[in-house]
Amino acid sequence: MNRRGFLKGTALAAGGSAAALAAPAYAQGKRQLTLVTSWARGMAGLHDAAQACADRITALTDGQLTVELKAAGELVGAFEVFDAVSAGQADMYHSGDYYFVNQHPAYAFFATVPFGMTAQEQINWYYRADGHALHDELGQIFGLKSFLAGNTGSQAGGWYRREITSPEDFQGLKFRMPGLGGQALGKLGASVQNIPGGEVYQALSTGAIDGTEWVGPWADEKAGFFEVAEYYYTAGFHEPGTALSLATNRDLFESLTPVQQGIIETVAAQVHQETLAQFLSENGAALARLSGQGVRLMTFPDSVWDAFGQAAIEALEENRDGDIYDRVLDSYRASMKSSSAWIQASEGTYRAQRDRVMG
Amino acid sequence: MNRRGFLKGTALAAGGSAAALAAPAYAQGKRQLTLVTSWARGMAGLHDAAQACADRITALTDGQLTVELKAAGELVGAFEVFDAVSAGQADMYHSGDYYFVNQHPAYAFFATVPFGMTAQEQINWYYRADGHALHDELGQIFGLKSFLAGNTGSQAGGWYRREITSPEDFQGLKFRMPGLGGQALGKLGASVQNIPGGEVYQALSTGAIDGTEWVGPWADEKAGFFEVAEYYYTAGFHEPGTALSLATNRDLFESLTPVQQGIIETVAAQVHQETLAQFLSENGAALARLSGQGVRLMTFPDSVWDAFGQAAIEALEENRDGDIYDRVLDSYRASMKSSSAWIQASEGTYRAQRDRVMG
Repeated sequence: MNRRGFLKGTALAAGGSAAALAAPAYAQGKRQLTLVTSWARGMAGLHDAAQACADRITALTDGQLTVELKAAGELVGAFEVFDAVSAGQADMYHSGDYYFVNQHPAYAFFATVPFGMTAQEQINWYYRADGHALHDELGQIFGLKSFLAGNTGSQAGGWYRREITSPEDFQGLKFRMPGLGGQALGKLGASVQNIPGGEVYQALSTGAIDGTEWVGPWADEKAGFFEVAEYYYTAGFHEPGTALSLATNRDLFESLTPVQQGIIETVAAQVHQETLAQFLSENGAALARLSGQGVRLMTFPDSVWDAFGQAAIEALEENRDGDIYDRVLDSYRASMKSSSAWIQASEGTYRAQRDRVMG
Repeated sequence: MNRRGFLKGTALAAGGSAAALAAPAYAQGKRQLTLVTSWARGMAGLHDAAQACADRITALTDGQLTVELKAAGELVGAFEVFDAVSAGQADMYHSGDYYFVNQHPAYAFFATVPFGMTAQEQINWYYRADGHALHDELGQIFGLKSFLAGNTGSQAGGWYRREITSPEDFQGLKFRMPGLGGQALGKLGASVQNIPGGEVYQALSTGAIDGTEWVGPWADEKAGFFEVAEYYYTAGFHEPGTALSLATNRDLFESLTPVQQGIIETVAAQVHQETLAQFLSENGAALARLSGQGVRLMTFPDSVWDAFGQAAIEALEENRDGDIYDRVLDSYRASMKSSSAWIQASEGTYRAQRDRVMG
């Protein structure tokens, strides 16, 4: 509450609170909304998802809401979108909520956490358990109303200049990794940095960082990392299914009609599903292309996975606050256990047999 | 084309073609639409999905379209929905398209086929490859415009009165299984029957059939099959990810405004995602309850999976027609191979390590 009041005060002082200043215009019908993002224009899959949210909300509200997209840096910086929407300087953001663990560490669960849920397990938790309600409870602290709106699937382990053969190889390694995954990697001695996607190539090519994770073969190929790092780990511990969020300023959302609110929620769900399909569909062909360009496709040895696991547990536990973080973590773990058991018994058994029988 | 003309003529003769007769009313704005389904009222997950489609299209079109749901038998029978909507006697149906392999065998791929795609692989094919376009091409033959609108996830292998220890155990077994899975099971000597869900319990309890598959633990528990069969196989070959469809009469769809069309498409996608989450979330707890009630949880031996695999290939191949079925099958297989490879390299490796490290 204090934080929200502070942010709103700041925004009003700067003369930029659309939600607070434009309230009387709400009843007039047609509205222009600004959607800020953490993505550079053209960023594979991510910018596409934000654009789809903007375009479809505009189309399906039949001119009542016109959503204009601003890429990272066009109105506010990539990581400033949360505070801008919280304060009402912009109306909506599209981002990954683990960029905002400094605002509240529980936001990580609405993107991804190390050794956490796959995309489908998270969807189950969000729509059929407490996920969405907990996201909403966090949003009340910061004046946000949020929906999942995209998922990258299980992300690749990332790009390295040399092979990783043991946990000790992370000592002193300057590596880009956001969220609680980054906190976990720090426990292995890495110097972890959180850099907006649009700036990672430059950091890697100049040696400011030694390695980076980004998304997966398709997005990573477009970002060009194969030009400056040779070893590509295709599976990782840190982002097993990274959700994207569409967050609206809460006062703004509450001023919309029920139909407009419903359209935002429905569009977010559609974009969620289609974005996951986009990443998963594009990654196979991109992986083959990367392999053809001399990239070395790698998997971490078990000793490294063991160290990742210990570090992940520590990172997840050390953020306990006796309050909402604990409730989110406990709800998340219980749901993951339940989801995972059935998925393994049915689809897991089926996939293993399909691979065995059909090759 | 001939078929479509014939069906339309029939419907007009019967005085029941809403699409043909009510055309002048289209411009007036508010419309009442009838959604027929293959589901009995209260049927877990399935009727819920149809109801969600009806309710959300009504809500998001803000009174322009009011969709009234008719359960199986209320207007037409469970398996008559396809012909009714094709002919314009009803406006929309919600069903599983493998019930309509007699209308065209290629419809099976828009529900599920034996040894076919998981739910996620099918979503990738539908939204990011040729799936939706091919569904639409089939729809042009029958005067339908269809969207995926729900998925049950990988279905359980089903209910048996005695243990299955070899492929020979299927000789003479009277078993309920729809679609190409049923065609495959017939090759093992089973007497395969396609019975609407609402009639299966009766058939099983009277001995009219020896066994049945239905959906998964949650829906199967509600249907009460554990009262009349003891052996429950949790993984099956026949429905690795069964999609549900929302189909509209094509003339009707084309008479709607772009906003109304967009809302139907977006709602279908939302219902697809949420229904899959519903089944996957409910199944874990239901499986534990079934186990507590003395149900024997089983997995088929490899020899049976091998026989399933051979029969599935034969069933998929023997429907080739040198036309659209071939294009659907070939597109489906290519997409499955590509999707599956990346999902295994990323999420598959991650899940195996998560199980190994975290237990």
